[in-house]
Amino acid sequence: MMTPDDIADRLEALRAAAPLVHCVTNYVAMQVTANALLAIGASPAMVHAVEEVAEFATLAGATTLNIGTLSGPWLTGMLLSAAAARAAGRPWVFDPVAAGATSFRREASARLLAERPTIIRGNASEVLALAGLSGRAKGVDAGDAVEVAAAAARGLAAAGAVVAVTGPIDLVTDGARVARIANGHALMPRVTALGCALTGVVGAFAAIERDAFAATAAALTVYAVAGEMAGEVARGPGSFAVAFLDALASIGRAEIRARARLEIS
Amino acid sequence: MMTPDDIADRLEALRAAAPLVHCVTNYVAMQVTANALLAIGASPAMVHAVEEVAEFATLAGATTLNIGTLSGPWLTGMLLSAAAARAAGRPWVFDPVAAGATSFRREASARLLAERPTIIRGNASEVLALAGLSGRAKGVDAGDAVEVAAAAARGLAAAGAVVAVTGPIDLVTDGARVARIANGHALMPRVTALGCALTGVVGAFAAIERDAFAATAAALTVYAVAGEMAGEVARGPGSFAVAFLDALASIGRAEIRARARLEIS
Amino acid sequence: MMTPDDIADRLEALRAAAPLVHCVTNYVAMQVTANALLAIGASPAMVHAVEEVAEFATLAGATTLNIGTLSGPWLTGMLLSAAAARAAGRPWVFDPVAAGATSFRREASARLLAERPTIIRGNASEVLALAGLSGRAKGVDAGDAVEVAAAAARGLAAAGAVVAVTGPIDLVTDGARVARIANGHALMPRVTALGCALTGVVGAFAAIERDAFAATAAALTVYAVAGEMAGEVARGPGSFAVAFLDALASIGRAEIRARARLEIS
Repeated sequence: MMTPDDIADRLEALRAAAPLVHCVTNYVAMQVTANALLAIGASPAMVHAVEEVAEFATLAGATTLNIGTLSGPWLTGMLLSAAAARAAGRPWVFDPVAAGATSFRREASARLLAERPTIIRGNASEVLALAGLSGRAKGVDAGDAVEVAAAAARGLAAAGAVVAVTGPIDLVTDGARVARIANGHALMPRVTALGCALTGVVGAFAAIERDAFAATAAALTVYAVAGEMAGEVARGPGSFAVAFLDALASIGRAEIRARARLEIS
Repeated sequence: MMTPDDIADRLEALRAAAPLVHCVTNYVAMQVTANALLAIGASPAMVHAVEEVAEFATLAGATTLNIGTLSGPWLTGMLLSAAAARAAGRPWVFDPVAAGATSFRREASARLLAERPTIIRGNASEVLALAGLSGRAKGVDAGDAVEVAAAAARGLAAAGAVVAVTGPIDLVTDGARVARIANGHALMPRVTALGCALTGVVGAFAAIERDAFAATAAALTVYAVAGEMAGEVARGPGSFAVAFLDALASIGRAEIRARARLEIS
Repeated sequence: MMTPDDIADRLEALRAAAPLVHCVTNYVAMQVTANALLAIGASPAMVHAVEEVAEFATLAGATTLNIGTLSGPWLTGMLLSAAAARAAGRPWVFDPVAAGATSFRREASARLLAERPTIIRGNASEVLALAGLSGRAKGVDAGDAVEVAAAAARGLAAAGAVVAVTGPIDLVTDGARVARIANGHALMPRVTALGCALTGVVGAFAAIERDAFAATAAALTVYAVAGEMAGEVARGPGSFAVAFLDALASIGRAEIRARARLEIS
């Protein structure tokens, strides 16, 4: 069981701890990821160079790795980060952007999977690609329904990661438990990198909650409820992005109690 | 002839197709370019690594290349993208940011021109620099009036590209036809990378309209009319950027009919 | 002495000159830095490649170097920029993001310091790290009170730079004079890269005012007053970021006279 108050407890713990979250993410997502982490109450840091990335990963409460604008040197940095986080017993979150789109991404994803992410957060196409199934990869959009990817997610989770598949209804599974979250707003996919920024927020919750399934479900619920709040005042994707950061900063127990639509089976 | 309804038809076709637009652009412009493409209804993807960029260019409906924060490896990726797009018969758009400012940019621009862009989109200084004339290069601002660059644009167009020169009045030419668009707003150059993001939007129209002149004129008109709409509610450059994305999402046939000031000669 | 009218005079001079400011900054900060510079009336340019960065630094009125998302090639570009700016007699501003966090950053910072920055702008932890003292480095947040860093700042300033330590109360010193600025807003550290963007704005003032102490104090005062103005209309960090850019564009003599809380001792 996971009640709205359980989620609010974790949000309050996050704000009290203000964990340092180390993000190696794509150029498009960096600013919004940092702003989402600051808004929710965490402390972001973007460091990627091979000279320091492993040293930095051990300073952080969690590490998040996103292959959006991947290149060779960045992949090297990500592999060093993942290994350092794992060696230090810290969670790391993998965001396999467009994992199935090119052979470079398929190989990079396989190498990162071999570093055993604590949590994987992607859309349905990406999770299907990771699971070796045939997602229709079209850029970074979700071309498959989340539910279609549920079986793939459970397969991936069996290898030891909590898997989150985001879409109109989000799904989180550790192979045994499955959470479904029915919040969110239609404008969220119309703002770039909100999925990538969510990966950062998942890292922030993982830094303060050792149960990676609970951390991920809490992160996705808070994020989707904030999206719902933002959608009520937005006039389009531009004002949505602004209102969403405001909502991440203002969301609290009352909003989570009133709005969260989380089911665990 | 190109009527407001012709432009609206293309905007509706774009939204129906949601074309994948592959952007190799500068770090400053990536987020706003992706958001502009999402707002107008296209699907952006930012990929630049030599390991995958050519493979990716063939997946996309159009490719756009922008040299704003150029470096050696990125130039290599751009050259591969341009060649792959051309080989696949897909349009590619060249954005020669500050083309005349340094010898590195002049050489890079010459190499990219040799890959025969379908469309070139720059400010007057940049188009003059491309044409080998003496633009006063001061950063990325437009130091020359658009009209001064018209002759240069026609010269460039004679080599086979549609050329768009943006400024207070935008100009598009394929060497024979010339379109002038008198929409837009004074705050547009006060928000960084709106010109770069326009290049992405030109790519989106080029992905769904084979007549590159018509695609470019439609893109610039829609963009400038959205700027006008945003200017009516903005209180400065910060709120303008927000309102502009809202306007790109909400603009439709009615706004284009009521506002477009496009002349073709 | 430095009166509010002295500050307003420099802001007006900046807007009249629209100086080109060359920024080699981190990926997170690029967009907001460019937008802050455009909003206040300067002309930003982001160029970093070794092939052109020195050539570009001599075109600009000032150069600003920020090590936020540092890597080897970027450090090379920064060192070339600093040397070129110095050789051309142009000011350059150093932003030592998370300078004490890793050995890579400590070494990079030492090498950049050896290029003799005109101005250093950091938070208390960073200035302490630069001074070889024991700042508690936690990501890029300020872990030390500004006042604790005042002695370190004076020590650094003795080596020839003007040093600015930003926090709830900002401090500027050239070793002899000390300015304290008590404006600003609690939401400023909740928006990513506003400190980095301030470094760009310091560069803009340094480009038009040869007294680096006066330029820095003016820049920090204008920026903090704009923060105060934005805070009055913001509903959270998202709307703050928007209102802040609007305020940087609209702030003038009246707001500076009414609000500036600058003391020089």
